Amino acid sequence: VSVLVQELFKLGLLVELGAQTDGRIGRPRSGLGVNGDRVAAVGLEIGVDYLAVCVTDLLRRVRFHRVEAIDNRGVTVDRVLDRAARLAGTALERAAVDSVSVAGIGVAVPGMVDIDAGCLLVAPNLDWADRAIVAELRGRLGNADLPILIDNEANLAGLAELWLGAGADLGDYVYVWGSIGIGAGLVVDGKLFRGSRGFAGEIGHIVVDPSGPECACGGHGCLERMAGQEAILAAAGLPRIASGLGSPDSSLPQLIELLNDGNVRALAAVRDAGALLGIALSDISNVIDPDTIVLGGNYADLTPWLAQPLEDALANQVIAAERRPILLHRSTLGPDAAVRGAAAWIIERVLARPGMAVSY
Amino acid sequence: VSVLVQELFKLGLLVELGAQTDGRIGRPRSGLGVNGDRVAAVGLEIGVDYLAVCVTDLLRRVRFHRVEAIDNRGVTVDRVLDRAARLAGTALERAAVDSVSVAGIGVAVPGMVDIDAGCLLVAPNLDWADRAIVAELRGRLGNADLPILIDNEANLAGLAELWLGAGADLGDYVYVWGSIGIGAGLVVDGKLFRGSRGFAGEIGHIVVDPSGPECACGGHGCLERMAGQEAILAAAGLPRIASGLGSPDSSLPQLIELLNDGNVRALAAVRDAGALLGIALSDISNVIDPDTIVLGGNYADLTPWLAQPLEDALANQVIAAERRPILLHRSTLGPDAAVRGAAAWIIERVLARPGMAVSY
Repeated sequence: VSVLVQELFKLGLLVELGAQTDGRIGRPRSGLGVNGDRVAAVGLEIGVDYLAVCVTDLLRRVRFHRVEAIDNRGVTVDRVLDRAARLAGTALERAAVDSVSVAGIGVAVPGMVDIDAGCLLVAPNLDWADRAIVAELRGRLGNADLPILIDNEANLAGLAELWLGAGADLGDYVYVWGSIGIGAGLVVDGKLFRGSRGFAGEIGHIVVDPSGPECACGGHGCLERMAGQEAILAAAGLPRIASGLGSPDSSLPQLIELLNDGNVRALAAVRDAGALLGIALSDISNVIDPDTIVLGGNYADLTPWLAQPLEDALANQVIAAERRPILLHRSTLGPDAAVRGAAAWIIERVLARPGMAVSY
Repeated sequence: VSVLVQELFKLGLLVELGAQTDGRIGRPRSGLGVNGDRVAAVGLEIGVDYLAVCVTDLLRRVRFHRVEAIDNRGVTVDRVLDRAARLAGTALERAAVDSVSVAGIGVAVPGMVDIDAGCLLVAPNLDWADRAIVAELRGRLGNADLPILIDNEANLAGLAELWLGAGADLGDYVYVWGSIGIGAGLVVDGKLFRGSRGFAGEIGHIVVDPSGPECACGGHGCLERMAGQEAILAAAGLPRIASGLGSPDSSLPQLIELLNDGNVRALAAVRDAGALLGIALSDISNVIDPDTIVLGGNYADLTPWLAQPLEDALANQVIAAERRPILLHRSTLGPDAAVRGAAAWIIERVLARPGMAVSY
């Protein structure tokens, strides 16, 4: 421990607080505090219909946070990355103004990732494949030394729940990321379960209706095509986001308003989505036997209306539910979980090895 | 290591083979051999439509193996346990005649188990619940000291694949146990993945058709109801096993014969089951991202006919399959896997801690 403390001192991450008198008997102890103001991490998120960025310091305080609603499906990859890099640049400038040194950038993307190579392999909802996102962002940022890590949005959102949310109290959990796509971060024994190739948690492509409509992945009746954000909005009679038109983030607040007003069509849309989520999450629960299911992303705000059909499905279809029901938890991080998880990923690496460069 | 060797010697599990001259330069080494003849384990399996027992020695040789076809659904739990205990007794006598000391009995059952308590919690296909199987067998065997362990059949069959089959070459795998019920043993990083409560792998109750027929679990369109042994036999026009009537193990060989003869109805029955298995195993693969799927139990013999529709489904529905296909492996242990895994479980415990009593 003392080696770690020395390293933290050298980096300016620890400060002496002076002698602590807490009323106990014995020699007054020298108090140490984390100098959380000095070092921070940037989280960057490339969503399907938005970009987001945040700056989080070592105390895990969010010092800067910005979301830009924009449909990234309508434009070239280069334009999206230009815009994402500019947003990251804004965060870096903000950190510089605050005299905070940035330990690295964590990037969340809506697709399968090779985290070692820093590549996005496939993002069906963006129709992107094989992009060396880390290298492309690094080139645009013009900073060869800054560590940049990339991972799947649902993985990072699931880790955000572990580090910043209710994590430790949830046991083994399936964190469900609801947005235009649906993904999961599986947390088992306090660690992210990645699968043999790092592609675990692709629950959006569980087939909930073999005769359902075609999905961007090529399959039919996939969960995210049937119960994702756009399916819910369409079923509720609200416009799904149209490429480049208007303000794309107004539909969800509008949906919540309708739900609060008791709008029958909106209530049915969310109830149906909950039942479909229930089929997929029952399947998952029968396979991996978690303690808890966490509703996150845009599902967090819809939890009051999703919960009942989802819990009914779990009670009926999970073979072990009679012995011990699976708990349902509403994430408090909501749609900010992925970008905050991206920054927290860097922070965790700094705290785990303060003297080392952050690298995968 | 030398402490372990001494312990093994004391127990008579290791024998000196004398000086070994293998042509290499240097002092001749004293060879050691495992005295695999001296200690063995008994595997006992309570199937839905059969009982099975085996004696396996430390070299993992099967020294005794017997399967009794009988429909255990038509009789009381007590009668089944009487019969199972008699079968285990036969194995113990055989071991005694051979002067082999039995380190313990591993019991495989078709349901969810509390392995610490030695209890079967639920076995939907037997309609059994909350039976202290270990205590009940112990009472019948009249041997208070013999360790008896109990686990789910699919878990033990999956472990048999790890210890006695292709295990190490398979990477992370989903071992699929096909019988009247369908279960899975999930092996991740060379260990059984049990889930938070030990109920992982209950894939038989994945819903493959929400409008399908009712299952013994109370759900509808569960995989095992749609693609289990009895569904296949019925679709092929063969008699499913009738309680207490005739010889229940003749239907499967009959099915294989029809398949080999190119019988259209039988081929369609197995192809349909393969497609349904494909839906469920694609879902599972999207969630946990395994390297390999192993077809075991009665599915092993059906692999030549199940493989194509199953592989098609995996290729189409597993979102990561384009990057690296999931391999399909036919288990060589077939329907003996669970009972052999039950014995191997005890053997592994003896070898792991030779001086300790075998206990969970």
